[in-house]
Amino acid sequence: MNIRPLHDRVIIKRMEEERTTPGGIVIPDTAAEKPIRGEVMAVGNGKILENGEVRALDLKVGDKVIFGKYSGTEVKVDGEDLLVMREEDVMAVIEG
Amino acid sequence: MNIRPLHDRVIIKRMEEERTTPGGIVIPDTAAEKPIRGEVMAVGNGKILENGEVRALDLKVGDKVIFGKYSGTEVKVDGEDLLVMREEDVMAVIEG
Amino acid sequence: MNIRPLHDRVIIKRMEEERTTPGGIVIPDTAAEKPIRGEVMAVGNGKILENGEVRALDLKVGDKVIFGKYSGTEVKVDGEDLLVMREEDVMAVIEG
Amino acid sequence: MNIRPLHDRVIIKRMEEERTTPGGIVIPDTAAEKPIRGEVMAVGNGKILENGEVRALDLKVGDKVIFGKYSGTEVKVDGEDLLVMREEDVMAVIEG
Amino acid sequence: MNIRPLHDRVIIKRMEEERTTPGGIVIPDTAAEKPIRGEVMAVGNGKILENGEVRALDLKVGDKVIFGKYSGTEVKVDGEDLLVMREEDVMAVIEG
Amino acid sequence: MNIRPLHDRVIIKRMEEERTTPGGIVIPDTAAEKPIRGEVMAVGNGKILENGEVRALDLKVGDKVIFGKYSGTEVKVDGEDLLVMREEDVMAVIEG
Amino acid sequence: MNIRPLHDRVIIKRMEEERTTPGGIVIPDTAAEKPIRGEVMAVGNGKILENGEVRALDLKVGDKVIFGKYSGTEVKVDGEDLLVMREEDVMAVIEG
Repeated sequence: MNIRPLHDRVIIKRMEEERTTPGGIVIPDTAAEKPIRGEVMAVGNGKILENGEVRALDLKVGDKVIFGKYSGTEVKVDGEDLLVMREEDVMAVIEG
Repeated sequence: MNIRPLHDRVIIKRMEEERTTPGGIVIPDTAAEKPIRGEVMAVGNGKILENGEVRALDLKVGDKVIFGKYSGTEVKVDGEDLLVMREEDVMAVIEG
Repeated sequence: MNIRPLHDRVIIKRMEEERTTPGGIVIPDTAAEKPIRGEVMAVGNGKILENGEVRALDLKVGDKVIFGKYSGTEVKVDGEDLLVMREEDVMAVIEG
Repeated sequence: MNIRPLHDRVIIKRMEEERTTPGGIVIPDTAAEKPIRGEVMAVGNGKILENGEVRALDLKVGDKVIFGKYSGTEVKVDGEDLLVMREEDVMAVIEG
Repeated sequence: MNIRPLHDRVIIKRMEEERTTPGGIVIPDTAAEKPIRGEVMAVGNGKILENGEVRALDLKVGDKVIFGKYSGTEVKVDGEDLLVMREEDVMAVIEG
Repeated sequence: MNIRPLHDRVIIKRMEEERTTPGGIVIPDTAAEKPIRGEVMAVGNGKILENGEVRALDLKVGDKVIFGKYSGTEVKVDGEDLLVMREEDVMAVIEG
Repeated sequence: MNIRPLHDRVIIKRMEEERTTPGGIVIPDTAAEKPIRGEVMAVGNGKILENGEVRALDLKVGDKVIFGKYSGTEVKVDGEDLLVMREEDVMAVIEG
């Protein structure tokens, strides 16, 4: 991994194959903004607060997360499709 | 339950069957944004304040809540229809 | 009363019958946003300030209030038509 | 007077008869938003600051004020036409 | 002068006759928003800060100022055409 | 120079003749918002912070600066074409 | 390099030739806002915080960065095509 997000941004690898996994997250076809599953590949140093301090992010590399279909910006690094978005745009972490 | 919302978000399971329960919450058909009943399934760690501290949420797992019809984003986990929204989008708790 | 508003929200029961009461609040027919009278049925714990503290609301149960015609969201509890809105949306209290 | 505005709101009685008084405030007919004269009938407890404190209003009952034609919301109390608006919407006080 | 602006507002008397003065401020005919010269007739007590304190204005009575053509609201007091605007809308002071 | 900008505003004299200077800043003809070169003629006392303090500006008289083509408001003082804009609208200083 | 960005702005030289480099960042043709690679040529003194302090930027001269296709404003200095943008508009740093 050779890309480091700035501040409160994270790099996520989309996991679209989960759409048909039984018992997993299923994206409804009719939802206006379909949430998507992915894995966190890199996190920024943290969010810059109004007093200049930096607050470390809650997400860590390896977290499985849910985010909106249109969140983030696509980049391709070493042949991989990745997304850059703010931690704020990630809705939840899938555990277990 | 294997999904953990981030920050000030909560996971809610919609309870649409209440629409016809006598003495319960009845959703008026003509309202522009109809409020919906649901049950809180998971809550985030808390809201990040401007000074970097985290304020625990007021909602807790098991709370019966009212929220706007179009609030939140739909996800399906282990076959269940769930909603992810911010605590701020929840209007009230039904007690008793 | 079995509904508890969150944070700085209040539950109000509309009193539309006051439209024709002599000497009372009369809603002008031509106003763009007609103010409406109601009675406060429940109040939230208070407004969450930026430093994480909670400021108790000024309104209390039983207050007669004026608010904009389109303020709040309608809910029906135990057969009663109620409104959920923020204290900020209430314009004034009628006394005496 | 039996109506108490909330927070930083004031109740004002419009004084439109001043339009033709010589030497007084004259509202130009061609202005996009014509300012209007009125008298303050009641004031709120004060503006809620971000730290939760309350700052008393500068306006007091009896002040003659100027405000924009479309500011505030109309109410009728005991047969009187009144306006509810925020102190911030009042532009100036007429003295002497 | 018998009109006192609230908070961070100032009262300004427009000086449109300067348009043709050689060596003075000349308003270009083609500018989208033409700046206008005027004289400060009255100033408010100051701007209310977020902590509730009041910061005195920088402008004082008698200052010659430049402001945008469409800034402020027109009032007529004792036969004089005046403008009420926020200090923030004044761009510069003409000295000497 | 007899014009003093308020707060965080600066007065700039546009230097459009640089468009054809070899080795200097060249404004591309196809850019949506073409940056323009100019020289700072006067600076305000500083930006008013939220706590009421004043922060001196970084720009000083004589600085050569780059700013957006549509930034600022035009004024003409003593026959000179000048611009009034906020320091925030200046993008960079040209040195050497 | 003879151009110094103000505050939290940075100067970036676009590296569009990377579009065809195998194993590097590849910009997808169908993305709504394609991210672009570049190299930081100069950085401002830092971001002005609300308390008046200045926070140094995280980016430094020589950093290879990714940013949105439409971010920043184009300038040409000494024949080079450069971009001026805020650090906030830079999404990530490419390392190694």
